[in-house]
Amino acid sequence: MGDDLIPYCTIPAVMESVINNETEYGVVPIENSIEGPVGITLDSLAHKFDLKIYNEIIIPIHQNLMVNPGTTMEDIEDVYSHAQAIAQCREFILKNKIQPHYAVSTANAAKSIVGDKNKAAIGNVKAAELYGLEILKANIQDTSNNETRFVVLSKEDCRPTGRDKTSIIFSIYEDRPGSLYNILGIFEKDNINLTKIESRPSKQGLGKYLFFVDFYGHVEDDKIRNILSEIDENTYFLKVLGSYPEF
Amino acid sequence: MGDDLIPYCTIPAVMESVINNETEYGVVPIENSIEGPVGITLDSLAHKFDLKIYNEIIIPIHQNLMVNPGTTMEDIEDVYSHAQAIAQCREFILKNKIQPHYAVSTANAAKSIVGDKNKAAIGNVKAAELYGLEILKANIQDTSNNETRFVVLSKEDCRPTGRDKTSIIFSIYEDRPGSLYNILGIFEKDNINLTKIESRPSKQGLGKYLFFVDFYGHVEDDKIRNILSEIDENTYFLKVLGSYPEF
Repeated sequence: MGDDLIPYCTIPAVMESVINNETEYGVVPIENSIEGPVGITLDSLAHKFDLKIYNEIIIPIHQNLMVNPGTTMEDIEDVYSHAQAIAQCREFILKNKIQPHYAVSTANAAKSIVGDKNKAAIGNVKAAELYGLEILKANIQDTSNNETRFVVLSKEDCRPTGRDKTSIIFSIYEDRPGSLYNILGIFEKDNINLTKIESRPSKQGLGKYLFFVDFYGHVEDDKIRNILSEIDENTYFLKVLGSYPEF
Repeated sequence: MGDDLIPYCTIPAVMESVINNETEYGVVPIENSIEGPVGITLDSLAHKFDLKIYNEIIIPIHQNLMVNPGTTMEDIEDVYSHAQAIAQCREFILKNKIQPHYAVSTANAAKSIVGDKNKAAIGNVKAAELYGLEILKANIQDTSNNETRFVVLSKEDCRPTGRDKTSIIFSIYEDRPGSLYNILGIFEKDNINLTKIESRPSKQGLGKYLFFVDFYGHVEDDKIRNILSEIDENTYFLKVLGSYPEF
């Protein structure tokens, strides 16, 4: 299949391409340090597709204000971008009294402002180059700790490397008080460090959650295998998303 | 101040109106059973405004497909709505092969399609009435468990009623393994049931979280007061958002 890169319009379409053998690996964003989990990725992995996390990639995010050549800050009335990028630049937009508008993607936003000197778009340098726009202000995101974690999805597991993480999803019995506490206790007694714990609505009603947990270790380690079988006995639902080398 | 209702454009603007004494209470959405937490509400309560949760209201959400009079399903090419409403009707949009577009609000989406028979909007019945649109399909949300929890914000605490909940935010020491486990243990030993546990990025980097926890009891109960002081000693940051009657 070589190293060809194939773009897809949506996150589920990327996952479907791996399921259908159109692609060998799919790369999708899973969480951002400012805006948090990417809901559609977590929901699709939990409910829709049986794919393994084969690897993870963490990329720093720089948002830039793009305009048509010659446009100054004073000219700008409206700014266009994806909701996540708008959210990441909330303070900048407010301070400069520009009206924000949502676009389907940052590339789409860049395209939509071409030729209009009262409009700006927010996105990365590639989008500006693609549509002949200029970067008027670089790094306009509210905080400097802005990074996004991507996962590489595959149909097969990744072999142990000695420095691995494992991702799981589980839901707890609602009628048993202390369930989450008990599950965390299983990791605690074996000194397994969690690197992430996120809750997502299970879509079964308010107060009912799926928990997305990442921890150190590989599913092929005996210790991890025992932990997972103990968790399985104490949860309503458990799905192992895979083991992969830490970034 | 009477019972006047004053609309504000954004969630932070609602909160600011309470801080500035323009309003006595502010009502904002805090979580949805399908799409999860409302990030801007949680972030604003954590980092920006010192307000108390005075009450909670849970409202079932019905999304409807709105069109200009005479439009049929076959006419519709594009559909407009707020990102959250689009997300809640993902399956319906996919099945009907309509192109989704984001709008700033559902009301804005309804307004934007007036007079165009190839466009539809998604929103509640009020929005349709307001702009002379018809409901072509009612209840098009993907699941029937769709409800949103709103909180009423105030500058003052609500008095105990005997059936109260308390909301807190905390962050744990990253360098102490098992910190979250230890905090949950404080509730566990006093048999206090948690009704919610959500994680949010602390905006300090990937893997660093704020936890939003709701539990039964009022801050004026001695037992709860002791629990909160124990949590305070074992967390890096603790903010009590208030105690209020359960809905």
